[in-house]
Amino acid sequence: MGLYLKNCWYVAAFTDEVTRTPLARKLLDIPMVFYRKEDGTPVALVDRCPHRFAPLSIGRLVGDDIECGYHGLRFDCAGKCVSNPHNAGKALSAADIESFTLFERYGFVWIWPGEAALADTATIPHFPYLEDDSTWRVLRGHLEVKGNYQLVSDNLLDLTHAPYLHPGFKMPGVTPEQQLAATTTSVEKTDRSVHYYRHRNGLPPNQATIDLFGFPAEPAISRTHMHWYPPALIDFDNGTYFEGQAEMDGFCFPQAHCMTPETEITCHYFFAAARNLKIDDPAIDDALRGVLNTAFRTQDEPMIEAVQSRMGNTGDIEALGPVMLKTDAAPVMARRLLKQMIADEQAGEIGQAGETGQAGEARQAEIAAE
Amino acid sequence: MGLYLKNCWYVAAFTDEVTRTPLARKLLDIPMVFYRKEDGTPVALVDRCPHRFAPLSIGRLVGDDIECGYHGLRFDCAGKCVSNPHNAGKALSAADIESFTLFERYGFVWIWPGEAALADTATIPHFPYLEDDSTWRVLRGHLEVKGNYQLVSDNLLDLTHAPYLHPGFKMPGVTPEQQLAATTTSVEKTDRSVHYYRHRNGLPPNQATIDLFGFPAEPAISRTHMHWYPPALIDFDNGTYFEGQAEMDGFCFPQAHCMTPETEITCHYFFAAARNLKIDDPAIDDALRGVLNTAFRTQDEPMIEAVQSRMGNTGDIEALGPVMLKTDAAPVMARRLLKQMIADEQAGEIGQAGETGQAGEARQAEIAAE
Amino acid sequence: MGLYLKNCWYVAAFTDEVTRTPLARKLLDIPMVFYRKEDGTPVALVDRCPHRFAPLSIGRLVGDDIECGYHGLRFDCAGKCVSNPHNAGKALSAADIESFTLFERYGFVWIWPGEAALADTATIPHFPYLEDDSTWRVLRGHLEVKGNYQLVSDNLLDLTHAPYLHPGFKMPGVTPEQQLAATTTSVEKTDRSVHYYRHRNGLPPNQATIDLFGFPAEPAISRTHMHWYPPALIDFDNGTYFEGQAEMDGFCFPQAHCMTPETEITCHYFFAAARNLKIDDPAIDDALRGVLNTAFRTQDEPMIEAVQSRMGNTGDIEALGPVMLKTDAAPVMARRLLKQMIADEQAGEIGQAGETGQAGEARQAEIAAE
Repeated sequence: MGLYLKNCWYVAAFTDEVTRTPLARKLLDIPMVFYRKEDGTPVALVDRCPHRFAPLSIGRLVGDDIECGYHGLRFDCAGKCVSNPHNAGKALSAADIESFTLFERYGFVWIWPGEAALADTATIPHFPYLEDDSTWRVLRGHLEVKGNYQLVSDNLLDLTHAPYLHPGFKMPGVTPEQQLAATTTSVEKTDRSVHYYRHRNGLPPNQATIDLFGFPAEPAISRTHMHWYPPALIDFDNGTYFEGQAEMDGFCFPQAHCMTPETEITCHYFFAAARNLKIDDPAIDDALRGVLNTAFRTQDEPMIEAVQSRMGNTGDIEALGPVMLKTDAAPVMARRLLKQMIADEQAGEIGQAGETGQAGEARQAEIAAE
Repeated sequence: MGLYLKNCWYVAAFTDEVTRTPLARKLLDIPMVFYRKEDGTPVALVDRCPHRFAPLSIGRLVGDDIECGYHGLRFDCAGKCVSNPHNAGKALSAADIESFTLFERYGFVWIWPGEAALADTATIPHFPYLEDDSTWRVLRGHLEVKGNYQLVSDNLLDLTHAPYLHPGFKMPGVTPEQQLAATTTSVEKTDRSVHYYRHRNGLPPNQATIDLFGFPAEPAISRTHMHWYPPALIDFDNGTYFEGQAEMDGFCFPQAHCMTPETEITCHYFFAAARNLKIDDPAIDDALRGVLNTAFRTQDEPMIEAVQSRMGNTGDIEALGPVMLKTDAAPVMARRLLKQMIADEQAGEIGQAGETGQAGEARQAEIAAE
Repeated sequence: MGLYLKNCWYVAAFTDEVTRTPLARKLLDIPMVFYRKEDGTPVALVDRCPHRFAPLSIGRLVGDDIECGYHGLRFDCAGKCVSNPHNAGKALSAADIESFTLFERYGFVWIWPGEAALADTATIPHFPYLEDDSTWRVLRGHLEVKGNYQLVSDNLLDLTHAPYLHPGFKMPGVTPEQQLAATTTSVEKTDRSVHYYRHRNGLPPNQATIDLFGFPAEPAISRTHMHWYPPALIDFDNGTYFEGQAEMDGFCFPQAHCMTPETEITCHYFFAAARNLKIDDPAIDDALRGVLNTAFRTQDEPMIEAVQSRMGNTGDIEALGPVMLKTDAAPVMARRLLKQMIADEQAGEIGQAGETGQAGEARQAEIAAE
């Protein structure tokens, strides 16, 4: 069983996955059932009847309640056992089960597994490009990765892997070494976030951008800025434009990457990628889906699963003593901030920020210099 | 490894499963091999040659003996190593293995895994309907359930699950609530058995009975009486008749349900169901097989396996603190009686009854009242 | 995790398995990657980049180096991290990994997992028939056995299983008992080897030899001599000839059997079988491949896996208290010699022979006499 941050928002599902047919999904080692009330409000309960441990997800909905498929106990959307049919339909408070706080935004169903009173939707990161259909076209995907969720955020927070793992993203006539050399990187940290900026100037756009949008193979400016928020939410600001052009006149490809632990060594990986060009062109949808599937499903996911296989049954790569590089600054900061937040939460200091900027600097200095 | 009652009878196999071809089957965590002597007597031995641990079940029969397929040691039906071919065919008492006491009755091969001297066939429950071909037609089945054996007896001993899990058993125009309301239940207990009586009066027969035997959809009397004997043997007396009719003039559908642990979290489930009507009609055979398969294989078995999956690697649901209902009276009594018998046996008080009637009453009162 | 002899030679692969495409193989619980340098020299490294634990086997070769497919660290064939592309291609000694000493001979790539300075290729057993194409035709095979590697050497070192497990090897008109009776056996032991001699005189050749080479079904002399060397290498000298004939004028069928642990309960089994007759006849190749496959893949391997399944998760059959026969003399001597060598190595007495001949005699006497 993993140790997870409880008082924070995780993505539980895409909104269209939660319907009037109960959905079983394990998150943070907890079997959960998701469904919608008749008015459309999403519901999450522990997916185990406390009577005989039947999964409620194989029961049926009765109005806004869910009825156990084994002996018919009914639970409302707050988890209260509102009816025991073997006792004249009376409620049975001893059989009440846990419900979870949900919130829908950006096409995601968000879940707060901790104390409901602390749930503050203002702490959900902003993904405005997932809410404005007139400017953006959004493609979504869901991977079930056989690896710890932090391995996925580590992967994103150190994009130096791109030229090695994603040869399709390469720029015409540019070697991996030239690409690394032309890229400037900086990392920033607050008490609840890590920001990783990659900027490149003077190299042509990558081949996919040239092919899909007709960009010339001429020197351009490109950015991949990552904004990490605990536990494993990344606002990925990606784009390419030419000198003198506004960012939105170039290609903008912002993405939300939201990882949620299923168990210590498996996770759900939800992503949503928006674009600002050719937003009504289904051929571009197909092409970009192909690009994303190639990168995420055939390159990142197998690599993360291979890494997990070399780690055995633990999800904590730091505990195994990896050799760190300067390029690990962002992933290491994010891991340590999260670790501190979990430790604080376990110690009862719920909701306190993990560390001061100063402590963060000190930690950053620990990273082995080459 | 589970902890099992050893000095009692379990069903090991149907009689026609044990032949001159060795049968490998694990019972109570013990790998066993079953075969028949030339005179037809069934034999059970530990399925592991003590020399190099080859399963004897992949060896061959030589007369009444079994020869290891690896180096040729031969064992008689009492487990004595009667021949070592590498020492001029002499016996080798150091290589004797355990044999098990068997007894055939009711179409079952019964096994007594404990002390042979204590084996008393009089303690096998009576299933007379499995022995009289002139009155009864019997259908048999065998499930390998990925769940603890007591989950199966619990399931049978609380039939309030029927309207929820077995919609096909419903009566025309009757709601689950009406069905529960029209049913009277009582539970009795002796020092070696639990009896659970369900009686219903004034509702029509269930749809299957109407369809198969042409019963009218009029108020009838129906009974489902269960007689539980340790470790997990149930004599299930089921039938429907009309006011003023003798039971045997109505539909009688008595059944033997015999569960045997394979491991702590898997079991063998043998059943044999007899009927008194249309006993020579193969179409009724097929229809009833369909009814039984639907209920046992597509409804009970998946539910029990789902429950086990929510319990993890333990087979003891009580240890996980379930919420109990009044309707759990019979399963809880049976579990506690068996638990006491196992504890007594472990303490050396083999063959003593588990508890007095009075202690039983006290336990029954512990069941949470709603 | 098993406990293995480290300072000795194991077979890692056939020479043609190690190429310019990296090969992943786990040996002695260690994930390893094998490849060849441009000059053909084979290389073995730990198959795990120390940075993010990516398997190097999914990376790519750059000259004689291997580049991690995740972030591009490069390792030379001694395991030195010779280039970190994120630091101007400088070496990073903190990221150096373990390499293993290899040696190619007899068509095998041999590996010495222990201290490189102790590796002495003179301790590799001699298999001259694997090096002389003009006299011998060699067939090779590789099994991945779900059983401890010593179960395979035990199997070979006690050929009394042949008439039971390999009925195809039987002689026409000869019973297993006659075959055992006509066979004389002797066992010898040195401080680093066990020799098991089986000689038979006066029975016809086995059926396969008659069929393949046209030998008459008349009294012949046959030998199966095994020479065992630690950890699990067997030089198997097998042949049949007639009175007055030189061995090489009869059928000679010498074989190398080399077992290498993958984990405690799985192993690699490499074999190479040479023949001196009809060495240019592909039909004999096919027929002998059939004989070997039948024996090794359909008889020995399933038996060894069945034995392992009866042993659970340990690989040490002696710890489970098997009943030993006189015919176990050779396997038991080999096991105990290896056990002593492992104990000595663990105690720091690397390279010392395990026991004196006298101690061996004493141990041999411990084997239960029937």
